[in-house]
Amino acid sequence: MRSKLRVGILGSTGAVGQNYALLLEGHPWFEITYLAASPQSAGRAYGEAVAAKWHMNRDLPQKLSGIIVKDANSVQNALDNCDFVFSSYEGPKEEIKKAEEAYAAAGLPVISNNSAHRFTEDVPMIIPEVNAGHVNLIESQRARRGWERGFIVTKPNCSIQSFMTPLHALMEKGYDPTLLVVATEQALSGAGFPGVPSLAIGDNIVPYIPGEEEKTEREPLKILGRIKDGKIEDCQRLKISATCTRVPVRDGHTAIVHVKFGENKPSLENILEAWDDFKGIPQGLMLPSAPIMPLIYRAEPDRPQPIKDRDSEKGMAVTVGRLRACDVLDYKFVGLSHNTLRGAAGGAILTAELLVKKGYLTSK
Amino acid sequence: MRSKLRVGILGSTGAVGQNYALLLEGHPWFEITYLAASPQSAGRAYGEAVAAKWHMNRDLPQKLSGIIVKDANSVQNALDNCDFVFSSYEGPKEEIKKAEEAYAAAGLPVISNNSAHRFTEDVPMIIPEVNAGHVNLIESQRARRGWERGFIVTKPNCSIQSFMTPLHALMEKGYDPTLLVVATEQALSGAGFPGVPSLAIGDNIVPYIPGEEEKTEREPLKILGRIKDGKIEDCQRLKISATCTRVPVRDGHTAIVHVKFGENKPSLENILEAWDDFKGIPQGLMLPSAPIMPLIYRAEPDRPQPIKDRDSEKGMAVTVGRLRACDVLDYKFVGLSHNTLRGAAGGAILTAELLVKKGYLTSK
Amino acid sequence: MRSKLRVGILGSTGAVGQNYALLLEGHPWFEITYLAASPQSAGRAYGEAVAAKWHMNRDLPQKLSGIIVKDANSVQNALDNCDFVFSSYEGPKEEIKKAEEAYAAAGLPVISNNSAHRFTEDVPMIIPEVNAGHVNLIESQRARRGWERGFIVTKPNCSIQSFMTPLHALMEKGYDPTLLVVATEQALSGAGFPGVPSLAIGDNIVPYIPGEEEKTEREPLKILGRIKDGKIEDCQRLKISATCTRVPVRDGHTAIVHVKFGENKPSLENILEAWDDFKGIPQGLMLPSAPIMPLIYRAEPDRPQPIKDRDSEKGMAVTVGRLRACDVLDYKFVGLSHNTLRGAAGGAILTAELLVKKGYLTSK
Amino acid sequence: MRSKLRVGILGSTGAVGQNYALLLEGHPWFEITYLAASPQSAGRAYGEAVAAKWHMNRDLPQKLSGIIVKDANSVQNALDNCDFVFSSYEGPKEEIKKAEEAYAAAGLPVISNNSAHRFTEDVPMIIPEVNAGHVNLIESQRARRGWERGFIVTKPNCSIQSFMTPLHALMEKGYDPTLLVVATEQALSGAGFPGVPSLAIGDNIVPYIPGEEEKTEREPLKILGRIKDGKIEDCQRLKISATCTRVPVRDGHTAIVHVKFGENKPSLENILEAWDDFKGIPQGLMLPSAPIMPLIYRAEPDRPQPIKDRDSEKGMAVTVGRLRACDVLDYKFVGLSHNTLRGAAGGAILTAELLVKKGYLTSK
Repeated sequence: MRSKLRVGILGSTGAVGQNYALLLEGHPWFEITYLAASPQSAGRAYGEAVAAKWHMNRDLPQKLSGIIVKDANSVQNALDNCDFVFSSYEGPKEEIKKAEEAYAAAGLPVISNNSAHRFTEDVPMIIPEVNAGHVNLIESQRARRGWERGFIVTKPNCSIQSFMTPLHALMEKGYDPTLLVVATEQALSGAGFPGVPSLAIGDNIVPYIPGEEEKTEREPLKILGRIKDGKIEDCQRLKISATCTRVPVRDGHTAIVHVKFGENKPSLENILEAWDDFKGIPQGLMLPSAPIMPLIYRAEPDRPQPIKDRDSEKGMAVTVGRLRACDVLDYKFVGLSHNTLRGAAGGAILTAELLVKKGYLTSK
Repeated sequence: MRSKLRVGILGSTGAVGQNYALLLEGHPWFEITYLAASPQSAGRAYGEAVAAKWHMNRDLPQKLSGIIVKDANSVQNALDNCDFVFSSYEGPKEEIKKAEEAYAAAGLPVISNNSAHRFTEDVPMIIPEVNAGHVNLIESQRARRGWERGFIVTKPNCSIQSFMTPLHALMEKGYDPTLLVVATEQALSGAGFPGVPSLAIGDNIVPYIPGEEEKTEREPLKILGRIKDGKIEDCQRLKISATCTRVPVRDGHTAIVHVKFGENKPSLENILEAWDDFKGIPQGLMLPSAPIMPLIYRAEPDRPQPIKDRDSEKGMAVTVGRLRACDVLDYKFVGLSHNTLRGAAGGAILTAELLVKKGYLTSK
Repeated sequence: MRSKLRVGILGSTGAVGQNYALLLEGHPWFEITYLAASPQSAGRAYGEAVAAKWHMNRDLPQKLSGIIVKDANSVQNALDNCDFVFSSYEGPKEEIKKAEEAYAAAGLPVISNNSAHRFTEDVPMIIPEVNAGHVNLIESQRARRGWERGFIVTKPNCSIQSFMTPLHALMEKGYDPTLLVVATEQALSGAGFPGVPSLAIGDNIVPYIPGEEEKTEREPLKILGRIKDGKIEDCQRLKISATCTRVPVRDGHTAIVHVKFGENKPSLENILEAWDDFKGIPQGLMLPSAPIMPLIYRAEPDRPQPIKDRDSEKGMAVTVGRLRACDVLDYKFVGLSHNTLRGAAGGAILTAELLVKKGYLTSK
Repeated sequence: MRSKLRVGILGSTGAVGQNYALLLEGHPWFEITYLAASPQSAGRAYGEAVAAKWHMNRDLPQKLSGIIVKDANSVQNALDNCDFVFSSYEGPKEEIKKAEEAYAAAGLPVISNNSAHRFTEDVPMIIPEVNAGHVNLIESQRARRGWERGFIVTKPNCSIQSFMTPLHALMEKGYDPTLLVVATEQALSGAGFPGVPSLAIGDNIVPYIPGEEEKTEREPLKILGRIKDGKIEDCQRLKISATCTRVPVRDGHTAIVHVKFGENKPSLENILEAWDDFKGIPQGLMLPSAPIMPLIYRAEPDRPQPIKDRDSEKGMAVTVGRLRACDVLDYKFVGLSHNTLRGAAGGAILTAELLVKKGYLTSK
């Protein structure tokens, strides 16, 4: 690649925006050239605008500190300054939908962390190791909407990463899960900042996260679906039932998974072998943010654990463990993934890298 | 009752033993008159023997402090000083089995927190609200073993209390659960003291507790079984699959429960009504430690929570919430109970109270 | 007392207001008859107004739930419905000052948790065990301001309770501290709700709490001062230097105290004896919320600890420990008090009880 | 350097030993060639011997896993296999003293984390940025004891690192501290593994760590002392009074420091300038583990914080903040350092690097 693609961050002062600021530091293909946020932050230097709410454990990179934050509502500004944008807007769904469409219509591809467009029929929702092929939907999206250069691609919710890659690895081998009971133990950083009050979660479990179970039950069906007539047709063979809980853990979502298979039921050895063999498209393409091992099985009886496994492969691997028979469904296991890296900004950056290789993201 | 029954605690210096020391303070029917422990502790004043490992948040009751700890291996000492004993021995299963049998054979009833005898065929495992009738097994236990006054009764593991009463309340109305998928989020005090190292669990989840899943899957079947030929015949209609995890919460085990019913499937309203109506034998008998409400349903979307619900009814109630339909099985809900109160010493004391009313525990 | 005094709570939906709601349940002298808050909450039932922000571990008392919250700006409403008010307003200092004065001027005594009037010369700041005599200032306050029935009394900041009673007990014996270096380790509940974000304090210490060190250094001087010409003259003999830190502890402020004395320097034995002997005015008057032991010395080397000592005497005792010589000043010790009980609502209720006994709070 | 020095770890299976295993991976000058531990571990592969107690968040480096652990009591084995040893023995002081002397006598230099020899007159206790010159004591140590190649050097306790470099930076400019009041808030990893039980420290502060205050008050005086007649003469001008507390923080010791100066008292600006200017010997020598900035001042009011600052410069920097006037002594500030990196294994490795440059560590 001759020179780096110029990247804009919409919602750059929020929790996910801060993650982008750190993760894109020194990225071989991308360079942040544009930072936008709400009108209140606009006009101030990024370092100053973000100071009071910076909650990362590393300092803001020096070179971003002086960039003047722009109003995220002004598409024109972005057009002049970047090749594509990451959207981590916060706000009402309908507003975000329109805003993202405005960027795409103006010619700027949008890679979105927001849930607003996840169920828009012609918008792909991508986990690069699982459904890289869905990026082809961009063609029909552009055609239908009359967009030439712009498009919208989303990434799914952080709660599903810890079981989607393990399931997909089995499906690739021809073993089809039909029923899934999932209980998640989700980390605090998933709620952003200030997020969960310390008094609400210290020495406690909160067995409910608004909207999270619906996403956990529904998003996988689209990701596992297939393109038909320029839309995604949801996977019909799988039913998921989820309970999502918040736990006093900083980073790393754990998923306790019980799964039943259809006719072609794998043995324990089949499963371990499938996981061991698994490589995804990002690994084949050697994308810069792709983990070498996208799926790590730990044989110790007490793994995966957030503090020991969340940072594997710079937080981009999914770690599984405790695979064993289940007397009610067929098998049970525990999965874990880093929710702000693999599950949020990191996953979106990996998706952008995939889109570069597929020719959808180019310099202007 | 004219005067209080004299109570001995075997294993009095351990975590559960300390709980007995606090919970029996001021008990209307029982008085601690005898404290026994391992030979190393024997001969020392209880206050002194327990000082270095006392981890309760309240001080040791003054009147116990000066009692000289006896060797738990010496049954004779106990015989002279108490009417029955609570056993919270720690050690190898076979040794504990023999020790408890020695006490019973000598004429001292044993109410045990230990798992050693839980699956002995003629030993009942009691949750007083669920299977009070199983105490009748004492007759055949005595007959078979030639014991006259002594007997052994156990209480089940702390991990199952949060879902056993809710399920039993439904069974009483004729709704029979057939499949159960349970994920537990278990508190630190369940591991005793020193128990879990702070470095192992701070900011972390450990998705494994040795032996806990087996107990969680198997003990309910005995509790829901029925007496036949002087033994408990396990419930055959129910299958349970459990995943047990350790969480950074001091007290209170949470259970995420997904359940399927047989032919007579209740509606959501049926379930709520059954829970609302539920009263157990201990409530009818007005046992001193019985919670007025043994089962509390919280309608708020984010309950039950350890810090808000574990102490309900002095830690003796079970709290449930989040009842809703499950697309994979039939329903899902979340249950919570205090593991060291309802789930350990408190449950055993309630069982002893039941045994008093049933005439099995008497003063000598 | 014939019948209970009718109590109003200003700022009733906030963190401190919620504490009053719980603590006054079943109080022998006081009954909540009036709940006021900001205009946004006014007109709604208290149970509903407070639902989303209720963060106490016990439920809201049933009988308060249906009370309609009134606008705290309307003094007339309060006048008709209560004998005095507790103020736990939140907001700009100048507004609170005026609001509290308006209540007093209208004839309603105000016991305030707010810092607004703490340094008003004719307003006493009371720790009942330390400076009960300062309530006499009410006379000149009323005279100067032309108030007949109303008055304003404040309670000090939660950060100073854990060392003020220990120091006062020494001063009563004639030992005068002259220099104090204090480091506090303050609990999360001191910041109210939502207060400190979990991501900001989990696995962390924040070595700064805005405004807290100034209060910790200055408030004791007024409390230890004496009345002269209808004002408090600050204590001149003592200098305090404080560092206040926030720690991941739910309740209970710890203070590490190094102290130097003037000419009459006590021995270690003198200090322990003074602490052991100490009884305050509230103990002599047997006020309902007064701890029997206002000051508890723990001889164990590792006490006081929040989880073991904060709830002593229903959270109204101050616990001290680790008294030993200091090579730089004279002595050092560690103090602990429950910040929302002794240090906030509980302390204010005790002050109100003192004011009843002194004849300043009466039924209308 | 032609080839790497061969390093042995005594006590390699303990908490500090594990840290060495990770920190020395890929070290440019040192290579672990020898792992020793207690006789129980001897004879087993390191990976197996350490498995049950491995508590690092990263996996054991593959190439160490198969090394057979040797008995730490056998000096001869070590002699054949390494050029020098790091000692992180645990056990009785007198035994450790003798064991370390045996290694030195046999010709193997010992860099020790243990406190056993810290106050041996002719054994230097080194913080490389503060008293690098003390390594010259090795000459007289060897001479007196008749050792030719071997010697013993110690590193100080983890509790003092966060204030020693800041104070030394001031002393270098001629400002002499005379009185120091220090309160520490020490992390859990300082207690090793299993260390502090989770039930003892969750939601809690323990205001006492056995032996820690004595070390904190005494060790600095030796470090700031000077060599005279082949011994260290302690610094006489400084008095320290410490209170050491344990807090629920994984890594990073915080020190709250109040300091008084002698005649030449610096201004605030003098102090900030001295800290800003500071470079130590390790920086001048560009030692591989030396932080570029050994002392970082954070101007934000709420820094340093463990989660934000402990990992600065790979955990080898000391971070200070909150410098301001103190009404009792002269100034106060807060310091922070990573206790297992700068404060333990990392500090010892830096000391070894210094000893290489000074010619005391060589290949055999």
